Amino acid sequence: MTFSIAKSAKAARLASRTIATLDSQKKNQLLLEIAAQIERQSDTILLANSRDLQSAQQDQLDDSMQDRLKLTPQRLEQIADAVRQIVQQPDPVGAISDVQPRPSGIRVGKMRIPLGVIAMIYEARPNVTIDAAALCLKAGNAVILRGGKEAIHSNLALASCIHRALEKFNLDPAIVTVVPDTDRAVMNELMTLHQDIDLIIPRGGEGLIRFVTENSRIPVIQHFKGVCHLYVDAQADLNKALALLTNGKTQRTSVCNSLETLLVHQSVAQQFLPMAATMFAKKQVKVHACEKSIEYFPQALAATYADWHAEYLALEIAVRVVNDFNQAIEHIELYGSGHTEVIVTQDYSAANEFIRVVDSAVVMANASSRFSDGGELGLGAEIGISTSKLHAYGPMGAQSLTTEKFVVYGDGEIRQ
Amino acid sequence: MTFSIAKSAKAARLASRTIATLDSQKKNQLLLEIAAQIERQSDTILLANSRDLQSAQQDQLDDSMQDRLKLTPQRLEQIADAVRQIVQQPDPVGAISDVQPRPSGIRVGKMRIPLGVIAMIYEARPNVTIDAAALCLKAGNAVILRGGKEAIHSNLALASCIHRALEKFNLDPAIVTVVPDTDRAVMNELMTLHQDIDLIIPRGGEGLIRFVTENSRIPVIQHFKGVCHLYVDAQADLNKALALLTNGKTQRTSVCNSLETLLVHQSVAQQFLPMAATMFAKKQVKVHACEKSIEYFPQALAATYADWHAEYLALEIAVRVVNDFNQAIEHIELYGSGHTEVIVTQDYSAANEFIRVVDSAVVMANASSRFSDGGELGLGAEIGISTSKLHAYGPMGAQSLTTEKFVVYGDGEIRQ
Repeated sequence: MTFSIAKSAKAARLASRTIATLDSQKKNQLLLEIAAQIERQSDTILLANSRDLQSAQQDQLDDSMQDRLKLTPQRLEQIADAVRQIVQQPDPVGAISDVQPRPSGIRVGKMRIPLGVIAMIYEARPNVTIDAAALCLKAGNAVILRGGKEAIHSNLALASCIHRALEKFNLDPAIVTVVPDTDRAVMNELMTLHQDIDLIIPRGGEGLIRFVTENSRIPVIQHFKGVCHLYVDAQADLNKALALLTNGKTQRTSVCNSLETLLVHQSVAQQFLPMAATMFAKKQVKVHACEKSIEYFPQALAATYADWHAEYLALEIAVRVVNDFNQAIEHIELYGSGHTEVIVTQDYSAANEFIRVVDSAVVMANASSRFSDGGELGLGAEIGISTSKLHAYGPMGAQSLTTEKFVVYGDGEIRQ
Repeated sequence: MTFSIAKSAKAARLASRTIATLDSQKKNQLLLEIAAQIERQSDTILLANSRDLQSAQQDQLDDSMQDRLKLTPQRLEQIADAVRQIVQQPDPVGAISDVQPRPSGIRVGKMRIPLGVIAMIYEARPNVTIDAAALCLKAGNAVILRGGKEAIHSNLALASCIHRALEKFNLDPAIVTVVPDTDRAVMNELMTLHQDIDLIIPRGGEGLIRFVTENSRIPVIQHFKGVCHLYVDAQADLNKALALLTNGKTQRTSVCNSLETLLVHQSVAQQFLPMAATMFAKKQVKVHACEKSIEYFPQALAATYADWHAEYLALEIAVRVVNDFNQAIEHIELYGSGHTEVIVTQDYSAANEFIRVVDSAVVMANASSRFSDGGELGLGAEIGISTSKLHAYGPMGAQSLTTEKFVVYGDGEIRQ
């Protein structure tokens, strides 16, 4: 195969100028055409997907991996609908904000512009091919998509939908590159191309993210894990606390914004822990409890150090009674992953102080951790959740795929 | 010596929580005390500086290096004044913006928070020790300062001013660390400590910046070089153009926002180039000219490929006649460094289009490139100028040393 990632990245860099300066209407027409192509070519895509599924069975990939890989007519419809939702979102590019006159006479503002070229590195989910491409295009970026070998036929079929849409509008095909060669060497080379790629976003397991972070010469936006805490304060409304605990732990367990640790103020432990225990029993939630709380949970295991760091992603929770507000904060600082933390309290000062001092990406008072995603927070579709603070922190929508330049309006002013 | 950078970074991480939650008044009191200590201990600092200067003479460092290293009573006064100016700037931390209700009933906003721990790596300028510390503290960050060995005595004397100020307010001395061991091994280890350091900002020559960029496991904000362009459009006011050219090239030459390349639309070349030639002759500016312009400059050298990339930082300029607006844009895209570009034109559409499509950090119409710094653009003191797009692009003030988290106000809402 003669595919060259270095050449592709250089072509993407050149093509990025075209998509960067396309107006909102043209970008939206392109996205609508991609959605239409997915529907039109659904048989071809499903056929390609069946080849991937066959290989997955032969290679005995586990069930959850096979499930992530599988496309159905309904799932394709959802993918096309997600693109149409991105069309509805506002275009982040081009807005000029905060223009201020300066003593020299010049006027200075900031204009939002695309980042340039974004590379996505992901595993077996073919929907990422379309989701990521659509969001990058909306924000005016060229994109390089490197999915896992398990999904390569599906990804190439989806790529062909994108390229037909680009072709229809006479746009450079290098605006979207789906890497056809899933060899690790290609990915390793991709991570060195810092002249032509501005940002890498890895999506997948912790192993993949760590590998990319440790080897990339290009800035990486990381999403490690979500060890989300619910802290039930001394002044909590315990019925609200129970509802938030139930929703956060049991509504959906395999997601990073589900709860993993419950912290309870000692003054309400005696009243609240039996309420929690009844719910856990009913919902079959396995409990890892601290010394002070274990008596409330008949079948609990003693919590170990590892439990405070655990992202169970299952019907399983760690429980700790804390002496006071400060010990709750300390626990979160020590063991949290910087994702999402919730305080339940009716105490005005405690709520404000929690929101002020906890420095996770999303900090909530009296709301379910499950709201911690781009859609629920009002960003529209999200491309990932950053748990590191540089550039973006928390759920990332189209705006996080842009930056701002300074714009200066003068009339011949010079510096004295 | 028993200094451990790993231990220092861990201590800085812990101390960062203290400075992050300090209110504006206390941070400003701390900064004022640092300024006062610099004045109070000026004799001690100058004595330490004279030791560095002696070594510099013995090691036969070049004159400009010795000049950057040298402190005088007047320079110390300027350093203290710069700190007092940072006190006057608004505190970027804690502001909550854009709180919006969501359909679920929760209200979502963003709160500005410090980054955490910032490491500065710099060379022989001792003033960076105070400038960088003050700006990081203003933005609520802990800071690790690793200056060059040439300035080590000066830096440690300045560090002692900072530590006396921290002590006066009973603050953790680990909020500011001046690395006492200038061995390269210590710097190399520092660049691996991604658990405890959030950002590295290298300040100095291109070699240093490249070394840090290529070796750091921590995100780096780079400032490579400033190859700034002045484009004189077909509809330019040529008197304004001459004034902007003179100011941009000759007001100060050793700075990154001075002009390095003049682009002239062919339709005004015959009229404008003689005006430019007269000024260049008078100001003794050496010219590297393209084929179409060389006849206007009696002593010009023929411009080579290298000239289009050159950052002369001297009374020297590259000149090119372009066929049209688009060729000017292409030239800037191909050879620019993403720093600052200026169009001179009275044509409304050309000015707007230039500002829209040129994706350098600072894009100007009819204003001098010399305005491209934090102070002139209204940011207050600057910690550097980013020429890469992630996190910050262009001059970086205190706000660029912060990030935003999501804050959510609920009343027991759960996700359906």
